[in-house]
Amino acid sequence: MTAAALPGVKDDKTIIVFSGDFDKVMAAFVIANGALAMGKKVTMFFTFWGLNAIRKPQRTGIRKKLLETMFEWMMPRGSRNLKLSNMNMLGIGTKLMRKIMADKNITSLEELIAGAQAQGVRILACQMSMDAMGLRREELLDGVETVGVGTFLGASEEGNMTLFI
Amino acid sequence: MTAAALPGVKDDKTIIVFSGDFDKVMAAFVIANGALAMGKKVTMFFTFWGLNAIRKPQRTGIRKKLLETMFEWMMPRGSRNLKLSNMNMLGIGTKLMRKIMADKNITSLEELIAGAQAQGVRILACQMSMDAMGLRREELLDGVETVGVGTFLGASEEGNMTLFI
Amino acid sequence: MTAAALPGVKDDKTIIVFSGDFDKVMAAFVIANGALAMGKKVTMFFTFWGLNAIRKPQRTGIRKKLLETMFEWMMPRGSRNLKLSNMNMLGIGTKLMRKIMADKNITSLEELIAGAQAQGVRILACQMSMDAMGLRREELLDGVETVGVGTFLGASEEGNMTLFI
Repeated sequence: MTAAALPGVKDDKTIIVFSGDFDKVMAAFVIANGALAMGKKVTMFFTFWGLNAIRKPQRTGIRKKLLETMFEWMMPRGSRNLKLSNMNMLGIGTKLMRKIMADKNITSLEELIAGAQAQGVRILACQMSMDAMGLRREELLDGVETVGVGTFLGASEEGNMTLFI
Repeated sequence: MTAAALPGVKDDKTIIVFSGDFDKVMAAFVIANGALAMGKKVTMFFTFWGLNAIRKPQRTGIRKKLLETMFEWMMPRGSRNLKLSNMNMLGIGTKLMRKIMADKNITSLEELIAGAQAQGVRILACQMSMDAMGLRREELLDGVETVGVGTFLGASEEGNMTLFI
Repeated sequence: MTAAALPGVKDDKTIIVFSGDFDKVMAAFVIANGALAMGKKVTMFFTFWGLNAIRKPQRTGIRKKLLETMFEWMMPRGSRNLKLSNMNMLGIGTKLMRKIMADKNITSLEELIAGAQAQGVRILACQMSMDAMGLRREELLDGVETVGVGTFLGASEEGNMTLFI
């Protein structure tokens, strides 16, 4: 009998992904995949820099105001452009880390994202942060729900673990 | 019937605010306000750099030792002086982000802090961090309780969500 | 009667230490020691940069591949070599902070680590991160268990607080 089957015990997992650093987003998806594999329901709420991890890699050509364009232009588009939080060294550190991981057969960030999606992760994007950063729904991966903080809090209420990454 | 009314179910929210970055403090108060609006009890525990977010903006003229004065002098005094964790660009990025947010009618950090206080948030300041950073009680916002880590842990025990931001 | 004695109430604490910054690792061990002193079971899961906090200070002379050696060489070996996340100022800020803490009789990071160990903290090291960073079991403090993310998630399932630091 699993914990979920006991009355009054909630064991969903909720992960706020605030950071857009390669290593932190990697950690978020490793935890998400692990929990999903254990049969838990996982909700990920992407906000601020974390939104960059779920951007589509291609330019969308959407017309925006100047200030919005500046942020959009400077922020990484998608998981392949994220950088290490430490020892990035103009991108060399991140490339080396990815190479070491590939050499050791560690699942790549892109595989982890696809794996979480295949296992039914729920991906939420913070509407307020999207407004602040000038990001539109069509610039984010398919299947993402744009929501307010209340939706994330509601999901968290069904769980016993909420992380801020 | 709310979850809080069920025996054995605790749903307070506790947020450790370790960071003094504008964006992270903003996220902390957005979550706090959301939970308060849902009728939850919210405790925020400010420690290390997070203490800068609840400093009074004016100088207090308290006499301190040299080392304490150095840290105090270099750290931002209050929410209006916090900087973005990314793309601060000597302050320009933070100013742009604040401008974009105002243009989009996103609640400002100062309004979020006032809103949380009006909704009854409990604000704790870590005594140990205050000692380490040379901050005194009278330099922090009115209504703040200076406590040890045990008080925060006790508050967390009544909840189902504790974030480290 | 403690909360742990009530059926269905779990109150272990789990702390993911992702960061290798002096101040964040310090916060992690302050919280761990506080919870242990309250009689709670505490598990700390060290991953990515956090692993540096539980490295042995001495070189081990293990032969490694070139890329692994680069990361190992650039990363701090043990708690005494960690730096502040802010105002490190080429190491001066960290030294000043340690001096202020010692002057105010604040427990040092090394004493906190020893205290947590004496109180029975369980220390886990993330095998995947060790592989990515080229760290071997014998380079970490004695008593550390090298595990996968599933072991950490299992420990977290017995608790009501999981932090990502």
